[in-house]
Amino acid sequence: MRNFIYHNPTKIIFGENVLHKISAEIPANARIMLTYGGGSIKKNGIYHQVVSVLEDFFFIEFGGIEPNPQYSTLMKAVDLCRKEKIDFLLSVGGGSVLDGTKFIAAASLFDGEPWDILENQLKVTSVIPFGAVLTLPATGSEMNAFAVISRKETGQKLDFGTPPFTYPRFSVLDPNFTRTLPHSQRINGVIDAFVHVTEQYLTFQQNAPLNDRFAEAIMKTLIEEGLNYVNEPENMSVAKNIMWCSTMALNGLIATGLITDWATHKIGHELTVLHNIDHASTLAIVWPGMMRVMSQIKKEKLLQYAERIWDINNGDDEERIEKAISKTEAFFISLGAKTRLSDYKLNKTTIVQVVENLKRNGFVAIGEQKLVTPEKVIAILESRM
Amino acid sequence: MRNFIYHNPTKIIFGENVLHKISAEIPANARIMLTYGGGSIKKNGIYHQVVSVLEDFFFIEFGGIEPNPQYSTLMKAVDLCRKEKIDFLLSVGGGSVLDGTKFIAAASLFDGEPWDILENQLKVTSVIPFGAVLTLPATGSEMNAFAVISRKETGQKLDFGTPPFTYPRFSVLDPNFTRTLPHSQRINGVIDAFVHVTEQYLTFQQNAPLNDRFAEAIMKTLIEEGLNYVNEPENMSVAKNIMWCSTMALNGLIATGLITDWATHKIGHELTVLHNIDHASTLAIVWPGMMRVMSQIKKEKLLQYAERIWDINNGDDEERIEKAISKTEAFFISLGAKTRLSDYKLNKTTIVQVVENLKRNGFVAIGEQKLVTPEKVIAILESRM
Repeated sequence: MRNFIYHNPTKIIFGENVLHKISAEIPANARIMLTYGGGSIKKNGIYHQVVSVLEDFFFIEFGGIEPNPQYSTLMKAVDLCRKEKIDFLLSVGGGSVLDGTKFIAAASLFDGEPWDILENQLKVTSVIPFGAVLTLPATGSEMNAFAVISRKETGQKLDFGTPPFTYPRFSVLDPNFTRTLPHSQRINGVIDAFVHVTEQYLTFQQNAPLNDRFAEAIMKTLIEEGLNYVNEPENMSVAKNIMWCSTMALNGLIATGLITDWATHKIGHELTVLHNIDHASTLAIVWPGMMRVMSQIKKEKLLQYAERIWDINNGDDEERIEKAISKTEAFFISLGAKTRLSDYKLNKTTIVQVVENLKRNGFVAIGEQKLVTPEKVIAILESRM
Repeated sequence: MRNFIYHNPTKIIFGENVLHKISAEIPANARIMLTYGGGSIKKNGIYHQVVSVLEDFFFIEFGGIEPNPQYSTLMKAVDLCRKEKIDFLLSVGGGSVLDGTKFIAAASLFDGEPWDILENQLKVTSVIPFGAVLTLPATGSEMNAFAVISRKETGQKLDFGTPPFTYPRFSVLDPNFTRTLPHSQRINGVIDAFVHVTEQYLTFQQNAPLNDRFAEAIMKTLIEEGLNYVNEPENMSVAKNIMWCSTMALNGLIATGLITDWATHKIGHELTVLHNIDHASTLAIVWPGMMRVMSQIKKEKLLQYAERIWDINNGDDEERIEKAISKTEAFFISLGAKTRLSDYKLNKTTIVQVVENLKRNGFVAIGEQKLVTPEKVIAILESRM
């Protein structure tokens, strides 16, 4: 375990019917901008609940933040923030709306070209404070300082984050807000959280037994509750558990002191940019290939994973690892995910494009040990045809 | 899982040789009071390292905070803080020094009789900001908002805490600072952290599978690394793991949304007040009795504990629970702990006194379901003769 700083100041307001508590968390004289996505919050009633809590506040609205939030959209919000002298942002939505809000918060006060925050990783030193009402458990953005922003004009999908500035001040996690989620977003949420954990866990032995067991705790719970969550939208007990797992999967806790992977995400991002496949769906495609192709590098952790998560104790090392990977893919499929490029009618052309796009963004090798080379990416994706 | 707020703003600065980082965490013009205990930090060199980091700051010192920090001692520090217009406190020591520092931080700015913060649980609304350099992993005080303060004149040991005010601004966790710890404090540290977890975990099923598994993660790691920590003071890898377990055991994470127990602690506190037995040593005495006497109430969780922590799958419910309790006591003994009142030459007189003292502090029944009555306390302690 390497040296680390752990500092996560986000206040989590968790449970049923807790939305009213946010009125005590926002300064009384704040000029608020409410940010949201395509308008589902207006259909399912969450918008009206939020507006009702904000009735004594000044607020304006900025809707239309899309999945994989677009730089051009967010810059319109930045202009509006500056014009209206907004000093608090309230994100109502899932990870895309919140990631977009983080960028708006940072870019509005940034003295320079906001694109540099993404492309050149310039650090911000102040942000408009912001809070979140989460409607879609998946990305963990509600308790971390990071965001992923896309720019379709250039085919780029880039991340940024400057802790502690870009942590939400608070996040409301009410399981009721998941009741009307589309089936596909339930499947995606479980897979997204699961792969977030493996990106931090399935690397190499780093003498961090507590991190390992915390990671295993999240994965076991996701496996135990995932299918119930997908099939039982009215089960608030299950929704609570999935929500809390998703948050814990990517709030920095299980990564303290570790070198992490994120190669599956990097490849998945390119599939989203090229073919508009949902983020988590790309992870379900790439993950089994990544694990098989990198199995020698990740051997010790894959064997631990096989034993502790899937109770696999028989067979030689290779057999146990293959069983664990197969069981994981079967888990994804059991939730309803597709795990092959051919499920999306994609072929070798896509593989060439993914590698070209990665290279255009400066790609030489990725992964926890920088061993996922372009050749490996090709092998990974060819195994997912 | 009930509704909850989770908000833990303490910045953890973790690893070897990271003490210098605190100079960036303390305001440059701060008037600092350095707080410490009996002076071991002067013998082992930690004092000199801290003073060296503070060379550009104004600071005064207040040493002599004792184990189970005393109200009368702390009030002397409060007077000094007020007189010297101190506006930052730096605790260098273990949980007792830090708990004492939390009280100094709160009492110095308290408009009223500071004893009311403890006896009448009056809430504070501001504190002198404080940071911690931890020298003894055990209590978790480095990442929580709580403190336990004693008053020997009246035989009281009371806790307080007003989050978020009473969280440390930062805590330095450097495993090197554990190198010179006395053997007994190593044993105590592991047992203290372990029982902190069981106080939150061994209650009843509360539909919190992630909390359960996080708790199990900490216990498994403490069991795996505990004896190495006790026997290998130079093993920094092990010290890191025990430090991180101790912090996670009582930073609020595994208690989110749960009703917790703390009856073992309450009884243990009385043994400390009466006979000056180290805090963790009292837990090692009381714990097996608590679990046996309350085994019907805690049955479901004790069976889960038996299976997941000790791999006990054979026998009827009672046998499995008894095996798990015995194995836990054997674990305490293997570390070097004493687990019987007779080990301290205590007899029935003590049991009567413990119950009388508890009653004097308003005791009717304690524990997660308020079922640990005076009669149960007697049965628990009689089983520990």
